[in-house]
Amino acid sequence: MNANKIPDIIIGRLPVYLRALQHMQDMGLKTTSSQELGERVGISAAQIRKDISQFGEFGKQGTGYSIEYLIKQLREILKVDRIWDMVIVGAGDMGHAVANYQGFSDRGFSIVAIFDNDKSKVGQKIGQFTIEDSETMVNRIKSLDVKIAMLSVPASAAQAVADQLMQAGVRAILNYAPISLNVPNNVKVQYIDPSTHLQRMTYYL
Amino acid sequence: MNANKIPDIIIGRLPVYLRALQHMQDMGLKTTSSQELGERVGISAAQIRKDISQFGEFGKQGTGYSIEYLIKQLREILKVDRIWDMVIVGAGDMGHAVANYQGFSDRGFSIVAIFDNDKSKVGQKIGQFTIEDSETMVNRIKSLDVKIAMLSVPASAAQAVADQLMQAGVRAILNYAPISLNVPNNVKVQYIDPSTHLQRMTYYL
Repeated sequence: MNANKIPDIIIGRLPVYLRALQHMQDMGLKTTSSQELGERVGISAAQIRKDISQFGEFGKQGTGYSIEYLIKQLREILKVDRIWDMVIVGAGDMGHAVANYQGFSDRGFSIVAIFDNDKSKVGQKIGQFTIEDSETMVNRIKSLDVKIAMLSVPASAAQAVADQLMQAGVRAILNYAPISLNVPNNVKVQYIDPSTHLQRMTYYL
Repeated sequence: MNANKIPDIIIGRLPVYLRALQHMQDMGLKTTSSQELGERVGISAAQIRKDISQFGEFGKQGTGYSIEYLIKQLREILKVDRIWDMVIVGAGDMGHAVANYQGFSDRGFSIVAIFDNDKSKVGQKIGQFTIEDSETMVNRIKSLDVKIAMLSVPASAAQAVADQLMQAGVRAILNYAPISLNVPNNVKVQYIDPSTHLQRMTYYL
C-alpha cells in the first residue's frame, strides 16, 4: 500500500463507505458485499471493489467483507482510529448546531473549544462548552495543539479568521461560510455549503 | 452538448466553479482564466478547461473567460437560472441554522415552509417562517408543488420522513441526518455530514 498514490477522489469516498458500514454494524450485520454496500451508498459494486482494493485485499471472492474488519481498516487509513480535537469559530446559529451535533465522538472527533468575537456571547454556554473570546484564540489553539477547526463565521470574516487559525497551527478547516478560502498546499479545506449541494441536484430535476 | 452524457463527477464540480465565479464578480472582476479559477477552487487549470469544454466553447485561447457569461451558462446548465422552492423538515438547531442561512436566494433557492413533529414547536417562528405540523406536510408539499427538501431530523427518523417526502413528490433531498437514505433512482440525495468531510481531511494530516 502506497498511500501517497491514492487519488483524492477515492479518499473522498472512503468516509461514505465507513459511515454506511458503521450503520450496518449498528444494525447487527456481520458481513457485506460490494453489491450491498454499493446499493446503500449509491456507488457501483465494481467501483467499490476497485476503491477498496487500492489498500489491500480485505474481502474474499464469494464470502464478501467482514464489516468489523473493514471498519477497522478504513478507520486506520483515514486516521480516525484515534480522537482528533477540534475547535469551532463562530457561535451563531450554525456554530450552535455544530456544537450540539451528536455525530462526532464515535467517528473520531471531539470539540474542545468554541470562540466568538462578540463580547456579549463570550462566557455564555453552548451545551457543555463556554464560548471563549476569539482574541485569545490563537494562543489557546496553540496551547491545546489543535489541528482541526470548524469555521462558522460570516463569509466576510472567513478569510481573516482562517489566516489566524493557520497561524495557530490549524491544518484542516471545515468551512461553513459560503466562500472559497485561500490556503497554502499544506492546509486542507472542506466546504459545507448547502447551495452547492442543492445545485448539484437541480441539474437532474 | 449532450447533457445526459456528462459524468456526475463533473456536475459535482460545476457548483464550486459557479460559487467562485460569483465571488469574483462580487469583487468587480470581469474576466478570468482557468489558471486563476483553478487556484481559487483548488483544481488544476487543465481539469477546469476539460470540465467546461464539455458544455461548449466558453473561453478563447489567450483572453480567458467572461465571468458574467460563464456564470450565465453554468446557471443554465445547473438549472439555477430560476428559483426553486424548498421545504425544511426538522426545526431543531440545524433546522434553525439552515432557515436563517443567507446564501440561498442569490443561488437559486427559496425556503417556503418548515415542518416539525413536535407540537410544542408548531406555530413558533423561525425568522419569517412559522413552524408547521409535520402531520400536514405531505398535503402541503403537494399543494405547493415543491420538489426539494432539506432534512434536519434525527437519524432515527430520517428514512421515514424521506419516504413521506417522496410520497409528496419531492425528488431532491439535502440530508443533514448522519445516515444513508434508501431512495429510488429518480430521487437525488446529497449529504451534509461534517464527520465525512472531516475524515476526508484527517487522511492527509
